[in-house]
Amino acid sequence: MLTAAALVLCGALATGAEAQATGDLGLVVERASGSLLVVDQSERARIGRIGGLGDLSHASLVYSPDQRFAYVFGRDGGLTKVDILEQRIVGRVMQAGNSIGGAISDDGRYVAVSNYEPGGVRVFDAETLDPVADIPTGGKTIGLVDIPGTRFVFSLWDAGETWIADLSDVPPQITRITGMGANPYDALVTGDGRTYIAGLFGADHLTALDLWQARPEPRAILPGYAEGRAGLPVYKMPHLEGWALAGTEFVLPAMGQHEVLWVDARSLEETGRTQTHGQPVFAMARPDGRQVWVNFAHPRNDTIQVIDTLTKQVIHQFKPGPGVLHMEFTPRGHEVWLSVRDAGRVMVYDTETFEKLREIEAESPSGIFFTARAHKTGL
Amino acid sequence: MLTAAALVLCGALATGAEAQATGDLGLVVERASGSLLVVDQSERARIGRIGGLGDLSHASLVYSPDQRFAYVFGRDGGLTKVDILEQRIVGRVMQAGNSIGGAISDDGRYVAVSNYEPGGVRVFDAETLDPVADIPTGGKTIGLVDIPGTRFVFSLWDAGETWIADLSDVPPQITRITGMGANPYDALVTGDGRTYIAGLFGADHLTALDLWQARPEPRAILPGYAEGRAGLPVYKMPHLEGWALAGTEFVLPAMGQHEVLWVDARSLEETGRTQTHGQPVFAMARPDGRQVWVNFAHPRNDTIQVIDTLTKQVIHQFKPGPGVLHMEFTPRGHEVWLSVRDAGRVMVYDTETFEKLREIEAESPSGIFFTARAHKTGL
Repeated sequence: MLTAAALVLCGALATGAEAQATGDLGLVVERASGSLLVVDQSERARIGRIGGLGDLSHASLVYSPDQRFAYVFGRDGGLTKVDILEQRIVGRVMQAGNSIGGAISDDGRYVAVSNYEPGGVRVFDAETLDPVADIPTGGKTIGLVDIPGTRFVFSLWDAGETWIADLSDVPPQITRITGMGANPYDALVTGDGRTYIAGLFGADHLTALDLWQARPEPRAILPGYAEGRAGLPVYKMPHLEGWALAGTEFVLPAMGQHEVLWVDARSLEETGRTQTHGQPVFAMARPDGRQVWVNFAHPRNDTIQVIDTLTKQVIHQFKPGPGVLHMEFTPRGHEVWLSVRDAGRVMVYDTETFEKLREIEAESPSGIFFTARAHKTGL
Repeated sequence: MLTAAALVLCGALATGAEAQATGDLGLVVERASGSLLVVDQSERARIGRIGGLGDLSHASLVYSPDQRFAYVFGRDGGLTKVDILEQRIVGRVMQAGNSIGGAISDDGRYVAVSNYEPGGVRVFDAETLDPVADIPTGGKTIGLVDIPGTRFVFSLWDAGETWIADLSDVPPQITRITGMGANPYDALVTGDGRTYIAGLFGADHLTALDLWQARPEPRAILPGYAEGRAGLPVYKMPHLEGWALAGTEFVLPAMGQHEVLWVDARSLEETGRTQTHGQPVFAMARPDGRQVWVNFAHPRNDTIQVIDTLTKQVIHQFKPGPGVLHMEFTPRGHEVWLSVRDAGRVMVYDTETFEKLREIEAESPSGIFFTARAHKTGL
């Protein structure tokens, strides 16, 4: 039986030291061990580990609107629901043979997963992980993002199409947009959910859609952006999600080149190029857009360059260590966390002084995902 | 003594039903009773009330980075720290005689308050509420916002100046910008922390600063925007914080007119006007910018108009009830909460269908503040 004293103690446990706000938490993917490190941004510390997630190479994840649950998309087709307050797995389904990322609807009701094998997109109830809709596409799907109105957008590698799936009713209503170009390999949507941009493996341009139009029309942008220059070997496909709004421009990694491209956010015309230390993988803007941090493909993946947005010049370069795979800024940008895989460390830096503030041990860390992503479109 | 069974129960209380994520919470100011309603966006419900906050007319608040604590700025000069997990006041100081809002630094270390009486800005430790810095200005200060780099920006009503206080070292380093114009009454900073815009009571224009420049220069924008037209009585000063980025434009309430103005976000030139039902108080963009929701000054404050950003046309109008004082969108914009003061209700609407989803009882509700604000600059 509970005594009065025990009840008081219970109360303290329930609402005191054990109470945990979730606004400054995050998860770090430990790819080799199939686990997630739970981290606290304010404490600059790891506060737990969750194991048993299967193959986490190229894993990504999204958060529920309350920032309590994460949905982890494993390369092996596993969709795992994790409770970051209780630090445990609360649901897991093997939903395909090979998947490549997912998204959560704006209302938090649905989680969608983009699949290589058997292709198509599958949609699940975010609460129960029960299947809600199956959208076969006849092949690999890529570039799956959420947009307002309980909608998802994704592209078809083989068909060169982009589909919009409206989940405000089930079964979903599908809008097909043809003529996107040969072999879209990745895509992104801008932070306002308006502009969807697909990178093409089979063409020397990208394709943009204005999703605010009733019938979005594919528009080629940056035509011939690598024309006339010998392409370097693509050690790692640049991540389009690394596109970042910096001031009035987007910054993006140039495929196969040692440079980043600057693109006017309104006209989508090229406005400049900055030579970089290596072939960029991610070009990430600090949340205020004032700086852009760039990491690089192997063998130059021990280095970070920081570019000033106004001058487009590199203002800082340093070597955090071997295998810098990912970066995540605190939501208002005063600090940045870096995964340094082969050092077995996550490193935390001040973005104004560039001082290293902390090293946190991790097993082959890759993606870092802070809970503030819950409130953003398209991440 | 605790039995094993009791310990198990404690564990359940600590991490089970009582565990509370903070990403989808919020606070509603109940001005008449000096209390705050704790609300849950996902449940569309009130989950608690915190009393004893003093005079909450024109109160506003900001959140700690972990979304656990709120700092409430009362009109009576009270600064109150509230724990939304434990639903109680954890600190309170009477820091001035009459205050008009505040801000929290990007790193969450400092809370700054802008004062009418005795004027100036006071800065407090966010953890303890101990005083950190006192910045006298010789008069009323307004338009206090945070920007990156542990800095605050605010303006001086009497002197027509804007000051930047850099708190990365204490005592703060102050940069004074003169020539802002006569009697700035409110100001805002854009979401990227770059452009600071002050409204002037004593001039027929606004003044902008590019804070990315080493020496920001005041620039007059929208000169004579009400020229040649009889000004209507200003029942309520429009809130500049209602400026909203919608697509490529800002939308703002025109002072003393029945219209909202559209301003190009890059050139800051006027691009259009939309006639409205009354004198707008807030013109708030849905987070994706696709819609703008407008409420109005007395006696037309029972109505909401929704404007489509692409066409600049009113696409929906309805009467939630008497005294619609404030609006807050869920972070990804699928729902909006409205304070309907004289109905004693907060009402929740779907922003796609405009269907009313819920009514929540509240005592004279005014400002609604969701925890996602913790991760935004300048809110």
